[in-house]
Amino acid sequence: MNHSNLKTIAYLGPEGTYSEQAVSQWCSGCKTLPVGSIPAVAESVITGKADQGIVPIENSIEGGVTFTLDLLIHEPNVVISGEVIVPINHCLMAKTKMKYSEILTVYSHPQSLGQCRTFLEVNMPQANLIASMSNSTAVEEMMSSDANSAAISSERSARLYNAEIIKFNVEDQPNNETRFVVLDHKDHERTGKDKTSICFEFGSDSPGILSHALSEFSKRGINLMKIESRPNKKSLGKYIFLVDLEGHRTDQILQEAISGVGQQTEMLKILGSYPTLK
Amino acid sequence: MNHSNLKTIAYLGPEGTYSEQAVSQWCSGCKTLPVGSIPAVAESVITGKADQGIVPIENSIEGGVTFTLDLLIHEPNVVISGEVIVPINHCLMAKTKMKYSEILTVYSHPQSLGQCRTFLEVNMPQANLIASMSNSTAVEEMMSSDANSAAISSERSARLYNAEIIKFNVEDQPNNETRFVVLDHKDHERTGKDKTSICFEFGSDSPGILSHALSEFSKRGINLMKIESRPNKKSLGKYIFLVDLEGHRTDQILQEAISGVGQQTEMLKILGSYPTLK
Repeated sequence: MNHSNLKTIAYLGPEGTYSEQAVSQWCSGCKTLPVGSIPAVAESVITGKADQGIVPIENSIEGGVTFTLDLLIHEPNVVISGEVIVPINHCLMAKTKMKYSEILTVYSHPQSLGQCRTFLEVNMPQANLIASMSNSTAVEEMMSSDANSAAISSERSARLYNAEIIKFNVEDQPNNETRFVVLDHKDHERTGKDKTSICFEFGSDSPGILSHALSEFSKRGINLMKIESRPNKKSLGKYIFLVDLEGHRTDQILQEAISGVGQQTEMLKILGSYPTLK
Repeated sequence: MNHSNLKTIAYLGPEGTYSEQAVSQWCSGCKTLPVGSIPAVAESVITGKADQGIVPIENSIEGGVTFTLDLLIHEPNVVISGEVIVPINHCLMAKTKMKYSEILTVYSHPQSLGQCRTFLEVNMPQANLIASMSNSTAVEEMMSSDANSAAISSERSARLYNAEIIKFNVEDQPNNETRFVVLDHKDHERTGKDKTSICFEFGSDSPGILSHALSEFSKRGINLMKIESRPNKKSLGKYIFLVDLEGHRTDQILQEAISGVGQQTEMLKILGSYPTLK
């Protein structure tokens, strides 16, 4: 895609994370602005410190990224203008090459340790697993630790911190991909191959209320690409639904369907229309 | 509830976690078996080391617990026979009482640090946040660290490790509750106030396929208490749906509806019927 090189893109840092990789896939020449949290990425776009922000929304193994879903639901000042898909390949790395049996400590984010659980149990059952705040921090901590320490992180962060990769692709499940969305002030114009993200909440429970709302899409032949529920945070068992639809919000059948759902819900928000990757 | 005192209940340890609290709410006199992971809880039930296992499935702020949802989808040898709801109240604790301004380090699980982000930013912006593998481990690490260290964890773990609670309820959002489910060899008999959990996956995408399946419930007046989607782990954008229905799987209308959905899906699994708490 052709993005202006003058743009500044905010992302969840530090450098070397998969988020930074998403930014470089989205726009290789752009200026980058690493910030400390997913809400801070949105804040950078809202205050104009960055032109766009890139945040993870869904992983093929773990599912939805709850911080991002909740941000899109509750933050009125950003919309989605694009998506990026990044293959996740965890690497085992250390200061120098060594045998698995020599590794006594492994640093990584708890989620990544979880994604490599079987690999770790089979190959280094002796290793003590240490939680880090991010995969990139894990490498930094490992580099300032003793010689028998290793870290699990991205190839990019191995290069950044001059760590030696011992083994590529140590994740237990193949097909590990993360989808990121681009946060922006306005969404994307129609391209003909688009996706529209919306969220909505019902005012009360009743049998069939969700099925009836979804029939607004099905009776018009609109494909539901994704449906996800998030707690409304007021009461256990009450949900906000996030739905991805095939098409652009300016398409007449989407306008009709969304208006039909809006009449049945207490809250409905269009999160943006943007070119779909798959 | 009246549970035999001779039962052994497996849970995600170590002691002092909210999972242990769920076990004590479920059965105060039972023997407890702390194990190292959510899959290990199921394993303990399957191999007979424990009679039942208790695992978190949903938090009112964070949403679904993906490890548990995926376990229920993929593990054929356990079903759900009950549920437990635990209020989550994070406490700030240290070796001795001290002022917020004296705290230089705070240990907790990254998720709990996230749930207390505003409290920490406002009251101890100087503090360095350190990730731990569990809330309980955080207290253990804090107790063997220097005098300016604090931890965020449960009241129960403060008592267990003899830590001093500096402040109760430091979570940013009120109404923080976690729902746990009881893993068992067979589910619960009908009580008249029951919930049935199922999961299913469609063989192909087509507009309206989900809405059509859900209409099997709505047209019979069966209340959908929850719907959630999980990645099928084979391909980004392909999902398995988890649905909680009001009623028991032996109720005739539920049998008809589930059979109707089963004819439209590639996979359908009944995860169990059990008394509903709310």
